[in-house]
Amino acid sequence: MKAYILTIGDEILIGQVTDTNATYMAAALSAEGYQVVEHLSVADSREGITYGLDRAMQSADLVLITGGLGPTKDDITKKVLADYFDTELVFHQESFDRLTKVYQRFGREPDASHRVQCELPAAAEILTNKRGTAPGMWLEENGRIVVSMPGVPYEMRYLVKHEVLPRLRERFAADDKTRSLTILTAGAGESTIAEQIASVEDSLPEHMSLAYLPNLGTVRLRLTIRGDDEDKMQAEIREYRDKIEQIIGDLVFGYGEEDIAGAVGRRLLERKQTLVTAESCTGGTMASMLTGNAGSSAYFLGGAVTYSNALKNALLGVQLSTIEEFGAVSEQTVREMAEGARKNLRADYAIAASGIAGPDGGTEEKPVGTIWLAVAGPDGTQTKLLRAGKDRKRNITFTALQGLNTLRRILDGLPID
Amino acid sequence: MKAYILTIGDEILIGQVTDTNATYMAAALSAEGYQVVEHLSVADSREGITYGLDRAMQSADLVLITGGLGPTKDDITKKVLADYFDTELVFHQESFDRLTKVYQRFGREPDASHRVQCELPAAAEILTNKRGTAPGMWLEENGRIVVSMPGVPYEMRYLVKHEVLPRLRERFAADDKTRSLTILTAGAGESTIAEQIASVEDSLPEHMSLAYLPNLGTVRLRLTIRGDDEDKMQAEIREYRDKIEQIIGDLVFGYGEEDIAGAVGRRLLERKQTLVTAESCTGGTMASMLTGNAGSSAYFLGGAVTYSNALKNALLGVQLSTIEEFGAVSEQTVREMAEGARKNLRADYAIAASGIAGPDGGTEEKPVGTIWLAVAGPDGTQTKLLRAGKDRKRNITFTALQGLNTLRRILDGLPID
Repeated sequence: MKAYILTIGDEILIGQVTDTNATYMAAALSAEGYQVVEHLSVADSREGITYGLDRAMQSADLVLITGGLGPTKDDITKKVLADYFDTELVFHQESFDRLTKVYQRFGREPDASHRVQCELPAAAEILTNKRGTAPGMWLEENGRIVVSMPGVPYEMRYLVKHEVLPRLRERFAADDKTRSLTILTAGAGESTIAEQIASVEDSLPEHMSLAYLPNLGTVRLRLTIRGDDEDKMQAEIREYRDKIEQIIGDLVFGYGEEDIAGAVGRRLLERKQTLVTAESCTGGTMASMLTGNAGSSAYFLGGAVTYSNALKNALLGVQLSTIEEFGAVSEQTVREMAEGARKNLRADYAIAASGIAGPDGGTEEKPVGTIWLAVAGPDGTQTKLLRAGKDRKRNITFTALQGLNTLRRILDGLPID
Repeated sequence: MKAYILTIGDEILIGQVTDTNATYMAAALSAEGYQVVEHLSVADSREGITYGLDRAMQSADLVLITGGLGPTKDDITKKVLADYFDTELVFHQESFDRLTKVYQRFGREPDASHRVQCELPAAAEILTNKRGTAPGMWLEENGRIVVSMPGVPYEMRYLVKHEVLPRLRERFAADDKTRSLTILTAGAGESTIAEQIASVEDSLPEHMSLAYLPNLGTVRLRLTIRGDDEDKMQAEIREYRDKIEQIIGDLVFGYGEEDIAGAVGRRLLERKQTLVTAESCTGGTMASMLTGNAGSSAYFLGGAVTYSNALKNALLGVQLSTIEEFGAVSEQTVREMAEGARKNLRADYAIAASGIAGPDGGTEEKPVGTIWLAVAGPDGTQTKLLRAGKDRKRNITFTALQGLNTLRRILDGLPID
């Protein structure tokens, strides 16, 4: 079944917000087997919204709309929807009661503008928004479904998950299903991988496809299959996964939604081992990636962010003479950082990073993008030199991912390069 | 002048990547005074791209396209463009020479697929892509301009900045200019602010507008003005900025593109003071936000990520008896973390955070989302209790922003609540 994503908001068109709602809805619908045919962002105007509705209704059977419903927007979306579905706006007491309760909890009372917010298209089924005050609306015409939701991501996600998808599942049993498997890789670029697995890609049957999703040091390979026999689909997708891994298995750190920090954590948890970080140029980003995963306290003890040389010495025991002789960005310093962290912070493994993230601070000998990594562990310390670019934030993220992937390779018993 | 953004890629439609290219192009065009009328994402198919081109050419004078040009895509975008502009694909030697050089630098030679990549529409002006191998293309018809760029964000950004915008500036001197000022606030929600400054918003003249851009603990207020007299526009925008700040001045941490960590850093730099962080639940996120800003080593010395109680004691000197008596998530512990960090890591200020980020780990007394903050400084220590939600990543980011904003308020001589 075809689906269309329509997002409304001047803030999207002027580039002040990134339309992450579209991504979330697209992923949610794709996972359910819907084919998202287009995604359109239009202005907060009658003209824009009407065009969007026309195009969406021509192109798809299901239309998800976000935006244009917040308390500081005028209510143009609702008006256009009411006109489009030839219905009128009526006051919805239940929504107003909910809103009143929310306001009273904060010691406030709703005003006239809130009453207007609760005027909703009479023909709509109202979807209760437990994360905010603007409800969702479900409208139908000639078998086509249009769902309008607020643009606040947190509220929209709640409505999609708890109101929209359950209703859709009840309504439609998709005939041709789509299943996919995402293979997560780190350490090689898109074109290198594509070249290496070209023979597998060429041998894919008609009903399977392979997509490359590169993102700064990691490439996700998404195998997708269409069919109607669940077991057969799963077997076939496993077969091609295995073929790919026979060639580039050492790059694979996991599957699905896991990130590289989570993949490292999973391995440490299995071995009942612990990790600390010693970060200079990455400034806490490795620690932040690790602690972003729930349950990370089971293997991640913490770390030191040692931006200054004094802290490299005080927290990690790096000899000031080492820094003087070789510089803060050197193999010697980063080795002492990792070994000092492992010893002082008492963990099985320590990852350390020190480099020149930029945009300034480079020299001829050590240009911006010169970064040293070290991993200290029970079997000794390994170091690695990275040559990154000139973009600070990019270099920081890239280095953090490389640091985590270096440990991942060690835990997998692989050479670090 | 009207502009249209067309992004091509199945990966966008299935929700595997967020279309940050659209945001970047929209912001870049808006800043130059273009009105972006729509943003459309279509499939990697002849049908999708042709529809997108039709719609874009009907709606705008300038069309920016990204995607569909990478080495692992087929070259459908180029073919459709060539047909659309009634021209043919010809081999572009200069692009192939550049590509060959890039490959040889990595000890490789281009293959047949790379020759195909260098077949470009004869009518196009070729835009050299110094960040990759797929060049941009500039096409014109009846005064309308279409620019096609690769979808890799890093490459697209280079082309927009160094090839597209300079050409546009040379070509068009916009008559009615748009100027805007973004006021950055932290500490109150969109609707609270909207209520407080309603009188200012109501008094805005026709040629000015105010947009609210909320994002988890911060709200950006964007004042936009249209006109042709630069000085008059600037004066008027300042007038309304002042009116807004008379009401909500204590929430304002900066202007434009600065983030809250940069705003804290700017204040510390002015006072020649230094900062360290002591992070439990935020796991390095405050440090990471601080070091994301270039030049942060001038005021940020580093910090400790003390996930385990042992490290809270070893690195920050938190008494284990304090943790036993009051818990790791308590006012007493977070106060000792901040004061210990300030003393041990030798800085003027220390921010500490300890809380239950979730999704698990809550108790009846201390549910998920219970978070303590402390800021220790030359004038003593202040603490603050946050009651956040249940979403781990959201809680972490929210807490980090609140911690930085608490220090910002102290530096501005304001009460912390």
